[in-house]
Amino acid sequence: MALTENGCRLRRERLWNAVSGEIDWLLITDPRHVNYLSGFCINPLSFSAGERGFLLLERDGGATLLADNFSRRSAVAPPFVDVEAIDPWYDHRHSVTNRDRALFSVLRSRSTRLSDRRGRLEREWFPCAALESVAPGHNLDGSQEAEPGWILRGLRRQKDADEIGLLRTCMRAGEAGQRRAREFVRPGVTELDVFCEIQSAATDAAGSAVMVYGDFRATNAETHKAGGLPTDYRLRDGDLFLLDYSVVINGYRSDLTNTIAVGNATDDQRRISEVCLTALAAGESVLKPGVAAAQVYRAVSQPMQDAGFDPLRHHAGHGIGLSHPEPPILVPESVDELMAGDVVTLEPGMYIEGIGGMRFEHNYLITGTGSERLSNHLLSLDRG
Amino acid sequence: MALTENGCRLRRERLWNAVSGEIDWLLITDPRHVNYLSGFCINPLSFSAGERGFLLLERDGGATLLADNFSRRSAVAPPFVDVEAIDPWYDHRHSVTNRDRALFSVLRSRSTRLSDRRGRLEREWFPCAALESVAPGHNLDGSQEAEPGWILRGLRRQKDADEIGLLRTCMRAGEAGQRRAREFVRPGVTELDVFCEIQSAATDAAGSAVMVYGDFRATNAETHKAGGLPTDYRLRDGDLFLLDYSVVINGYRSDLTNTIAVGNATDDQRRISEVCLTALAAGESVLKPGVAAAQVYRAVSQPMQDAGFDPLRHHAGHGIGLSHPEPPILVPESVDELMAGDVVTLEPGMYIEGIGGMRFEHNYLITGTGSERLSNHLLSLDRG
Repeated sequence: MALTENGCRLRRERLWNAVSGEIDWLLITDPRHVNYLSGFCINPLSFSAGERGFLLLERDGGATLLADNFSRRSAVAPPFVDVEAIDPWYDHRHSVTNRDRALFSVLRSRSTRLSDRRGRLEREWFPCAALESVAPGHNLDGSQEAEPGWILRGLRRQKDADEIGLLRTCMRAGEAGQRRAREFVRPGVTELDVFCEIQSAATDAAGSAVMVYGDFRATNAETHKAGGLPTDYRLRDGDLFLLDYSVVINGYRSDLTNTIAVGNATDDQRRISEVCLTALAAGESVLKPGVAAAQVYRAVSQPMQDAGFDPLRHHAGHGIGLSHPEPPILVPESVDELMAGDVVTLEPGMYIEGIGGMRFEHNYLITGTGSERLSNHLLSLDRG
Repeated sequence: MALTENGCRLRRERLWNAVSGEIDWLLITDPRHVNYLSGFCINPLSFSAGERGFLLLERDGGATLLADNFSRRSAVAPPFVDVEAIDPWYDHRHSVTNRDRALFSVLRSRSTRLSDRRGRLEREWFPCAALESVAPGHNLDGSQEAEPGWILRGLRRQKDADEIGLLRTCMRAGEAGQRRAREFVRPGVTELDVFCEIQSAATDAAGSAVMVYGDFRATNAETHKAGGLPTDYRLRDGDLFLLDYSVVINGYRSDLTNTIAVGNATDDQRRISEVCLTALAAGESVLKPGVAAAQVYRAVSQPMQDAGFDPLRHHAGHGIGLSHPEPPILVPESVDELMAGDVVTLEPGMYIEGIGGMRFEHNYLITGTGSERLSNHLLSLDRG
């Protein structure tokens, strides 16, 4: 349920293999990439949410975490680095300095190590004010493709064993929420009530406090499209309750959807749900390395068109991992292609005036020869 | 329960009053400051958590939000700006570009407006890679005191009416959690069970999905100090369950603590709790503008020393608002001084081997003449 030392080491090796040989150090600053390469992730459920740590990588293999002591204390797990350079920002005795400057001062303490060798900053997240803390003249310009962030976003598509393990934990937590929702949903409860039940079930399943976000909204014949976080709306007979949500653990997330008929589903609603499930199966049948993302979209959309409806109006799915959405994007004009190690969603939805909105979703790992479905929740309008 | 247009306008005016007259524009990039000045806050419970929006302020009063369309969609509330410059990053038809670069490209579309006038970047959060998108030569060096971030951190101490309104909503949600915990705690339930109950009660009280974080840990005669998120530990008779947590709404937060005896409190535990409550009252009695933060610490610590214990080992409290902790810091060698508009915690705690750990906490607004207690939860070892 966490990244491993071996996984972080492998990812750092792959990064170095992709970096020009004249570069001796890299300063990683996107919080997702710091996590990816070291397992250092500030818990979003902490007083340090939104703060930052930097990761200094050296070609000889060294990895140094730079952070303030409260950010370090808020880590989801101990980081896999050789050195922790921690600023004693909060000492329970003195007024605090600016927390950003505390981080930059740790970086400054490393600057002589950096100044006599060539390095690259991850510039998309490296703050200007910290430039004073490293020797100038590193990659303040240069091609985008040589940027550490650019390389890392490419590498991130092929998930490693430890990442997939973490994603499986996210799947189990998401499934527990969907199961609880099917038991709990009934006329009279609010969207917020169901959200709280899902949150609790996901927390129980994960064995730790987790983040749950997504769409928790009722649709019906009058309002066939709604999205976003839950409201105090009380569910009514005739509503379709659309639960499309992610559970985030250590920065990684699942993305599972089911739609529950609050009362008895109408024949029209059942018919639409059959079309959606057929579309999902059609998408599933084409998942394998080398397949164009646009082809997956077309496979998902075709059963809707065959049944006399419009083509799928939104994406058919997308990559998921440290961010949401991420490549590959399964849309009509996508130039992405599936590759082994991708983790993707398939999520056909239909929103029909006079009937209501619904969506169903599973998550898949693209394997060497096809795909493995990672999520196992029941897709069904029926409460259970 | 949200920042107001008038509040954002007032804060922008105060910022401009503090900025040198030769500066015509400011580019605000710390997510807390973007929120403070415009109400734009990406919901941490969304797929855009961790993404960024920038705020361009012009001296003539104009305010422009720069963001991608999915970050904008994830806002907790509509922002109070004159122009929204939104990159159509995700269009459900094409592969995605890098999301950071999407943000920078919106900035680039504004660059001619910026290049012929003097401006200041908020450099502590302005990424190097976006420098290409603005004309160079702005404040890449210069005194820290002239930085927008430096000025804003000073202004942030004096909370406005809309900020205090939002903090009161956080207080009500925190209190609801403490109330639920006092009813729910009993031998046999896990720390995680209690956490889920608190989260649900806070959500109900707020009427929306909220973030809850903090310490949810049992202590006892053997383990008198523990902190952090809840575990699957089952509460036992003899334990003291320490609940020190924050509820975050639209970026603002409360910070309330109570300690509950899981069974019947021992005489020693009651005696210690009396010392803590006396310490809290002593701190409360000195809160007013102009008082040294170190004096508040001494006032809180003195009753512990009078009762024959060590001086308070951690802070006596701290400022709270968009971050946690923030000035003033109530510690022995603090050079901070209370000022009207500060919102502070007071949180005496004692952790005694052979007895257990406990802590109690209220939050206060420093008024023109003294203080107003913002939190109203019961401080008591007894379940209720």
